[in-house]
Amino acid sequence: MSKEGSAREAIFGHQHDRIFERLSDLDPDLAGYIRDFAYDTVYERPGLDLKTRELLACTLLLGLGSPDELKTHLRGAMRAGASEQELRETLLFAVPFVGFPRVVAAFVQLRSLLEKQAKQGSAPPPR
Amino acid sequence: MSKEGSAREAIFGHQHDRIFERLSDLDPDLAGYIRDFAYDTVYERPGLDLKTRELLACTLLLGLGSPDELKTHLRGAMRAGASEQELRETLLFAVPFVGFPRVVAAFVQLRSLLEKQAKQGSAPPPR
Amino acid sequence: MSKEGSAREAIFGHQHDRIFERLSDLDPDLAGYIRDFAYDTVYERPGLDLKTRELLACTLLLGLGSPDELKTHLRGAMRAGASEQELRETLLFAVPFVGFPRVVAAFVQLRSLLEKQAKQGSAPPPR
Amino acid sequence: MSKEGSAREAIFGHQHDRIFERLSDLDPDLAGYIRDFAYDTVYERPGLDLKTRELLACTLLLGLGSPDELKTHLRGAMRAGASEQELRETLLFAVPFVGFPRVVAAFVQLRSLLEKQAKQGSAPPPR
Amino acid sequence: MSKEGSAREAIFGHQHDRIFERLSDLDPDLAGYIRDFAYDTVYERPGLDLKTRELLACTLLLGLGSPDELKTHLRGAMRAGASEQELRETLLFAVPFVGFPRVVAAFVQLRSLLEKQAKQGSAPPPR
Amino acid sequence: MSKEGSAREAIFGHQHDRIFERLSDLDPDLAGYIRDFAYDTVYERPGLDLKTRELLACTLLLGLGSPDELKTHLRGAMRAGASEQELRETLLFAVPFVGFPRVVAAFVQLRSLLEKQAKQGSAPPPR
Repeated sequence: MSKEGSAREAIFGHQHDRIFERLSDLDPDLAGYIRDFAYDTVYERPGLDLKTRELLACTLLLGLGSPDELKTHLRGAMRAGASEQELRETLLFAVPFVGFPRVVAAFVQLRSLLEKQAKQGSAPPPR
Repeated sequence: MSKEGSAREAIFGHQHDRIFERLSDLDPDLAGYIRDFAYDTVYERPGLDLKTRELLACTLLLGLGSPDELKTHLRGAMRAGASEQELRETLLFAVPFVGFPRVVAAFVQLRSLLEKQAKQGSAPPPR
Repeated sequence: MSKEGSAREAIFGHQHDRIFERLSDLDPDLAGYIRDFAYDTVYERPGLDLKTRELLACTLLLGLGSPDELKTHLRGAMRAGASEQELRETLLFAVPFVGFPRVVAAFVQLRSLLEKQAKQGSAPPPR
Repeated sequence: MSKEGSAREAIFGHQHDRIFERLSDLDPDLAGYIRDFAYDTVYERPGLDLKTRELLACTLLLGLGSPDELKTHLRGAMRAGASEQELRETLLFAVPFVGFPRVVAAFVQLRSLLEKQAKQGSAPPPR
Repeated sequence: MSKEGSAREAIFGHQHDRIFERLSDLDPDLAGYIRDFAYDTVYERPGLDLKTRELLACTLLLGLGSPDELKTHLRGAMRAGASEQELRETLLFAVPFVGFPRVVAAFVQLRSLLEKQAKQGSAPPPR
Repeated sequence: MSKEGSAREAIFGHQHDRIFERLSDLDPDLAGYIRDFAYDTVYERPGLDLKTRELLACTLLLGLGSPDELKTHLRGAMRAGASEQELRETLLFAVPFVGFPRVVAAFVQLRSLLEKQAKQGSAPPPR
């Protein structure tokens, strides 16, 4: 199912196939719509680079209060080239728009991601 | 109240003083918090350029369903250098995350802004 | 652009082309996604009849607080065979889940739709 | 339909009957649930005074983004004894929890209410 | 507290008393309002069959992002006669209105429910 | 970092330093904004007593669906003088505005808080 050079390949990295298997297990048609419409149609549009798209995704998911998907896209933003500082700035920027509780919840996901990366010996991106 | 070279000067342009007078008229302390905390503290942080911040702002306001503030920041994003295409891409990108109704409402604001600019003879940014 | 026998033809009736022209005017790609993904893919799935789908749409839009789209789908539900009573029951049913304010706002849209139909001499569906 | 000494009589004042007629016109059963459950059951509970309840109502409606109902309860809070300052403090207090856009929208309703009261020669509550 | 032939009896099945004991343990008056207003008043209204009401409930809870209550009403929809396919269609139908994250979260609840039923040897409804 | 007699000292009690260390650990600037803007600026304003502010906070967090922060402020409301009955009334009051699911989720947090207090031998506030 993976597609060389696609946005979803870049965002999900080696977890790509596992993520789509999990979605397929939930519902094959749901997985298909996410792959074909969300990723291969909307994400592949020209006019915004992938890093910017992933920062927008983090912001949208912070606003929705969807912690699991937020973590996935915080990781995706890093894979697309965002530094830890850029992620922190993106989350902090949301404070005046949606208030502190949603932003605190988002930083909980970021810390969990950074801790996991530290344990796995993968050097975190420079801050 | 205007501050040379500030983010809020760049975003609001010649409407800066009128916007803050309107906010002050609503509540002086509210206007002060928006100026001092939202703009002069959060917006002025390093690490993300102003255009990216304004695209994030548009995304957050699209998610909240706040049409007036969205229009203000669509205009702000243009003042910060975003092209019409970048704005369209930012709004379209939100579809998979929050669905069509919020995005349609956002494009209504964008069209209203573009029409106003066309009437005023200000050439819209190249698409 | 209209498609004989499609869900969108059934829901939008004689307003079909006008609605998609308005969406295209907002953004041609947005209109294309709504037509191809929302209507011709998701709405055309088997397993739920169109009337039930439109009642679900009204419920989702009531929860989102999107009055214009809600009105469109209240009308769509009628075109798909829902009676005025079924619409009233659908809106009242949302009270325990999302509270009164969203439901009052939804009934404002329903009344506006019924008044327009009464003026146009189109007999409202039996209650 | 009015009930001497009830919370809804206190909140709605001379507009009580008009408000419930308008709700009845939307849907008689909806109006009945609002009267019997929301007001005559929940509002009449002991343990919180009416002014505090109305400040909580304003806060809930600010969070929901329901401008019309918010205005009704800003007026209701005044009728229940809240000063203009208490209303301003209630709205400002929401900033850290839900961000500026919802609070700005709420102050627009408060200003509209205060202007109407000023025109009607009814002295606003002391600030 | 159970009531022969009531909507809540049909939806909750053998879990009825346990669910209301748990609610009573949270707050007896809250449990009373849910029983008397939400179920014995709103759910018992004529004009929509129980299966349709439960599909609307699932949609409302998907939109709210309330996973526990969603699971309860996915089970309730099955007890009211909805097939697994109808549940899947109901959840998929929400994608264009509220986006993928809420729908993915809803399918996580559906899968958890189906797995539990499979373990208990209760044949799942035909798909 | 603690400040004698401040709102945050009153609300967080002996947990004050631990709470701000946890926030600082998430992001030092985020912690600083919460301390300086949310608490030392907004909370310290005159015009509403601390108990009323904490009841408003609980209401805002119930509406947002933020269980962890809600629990913190239910405890804060108790420290600011709210009785268990006042907390129950505050949560029940939200039912007509936002519906049952959010309120049930809030009572889950309240019960968890009361159980913890009971275990610790700290007599709960009189109901």
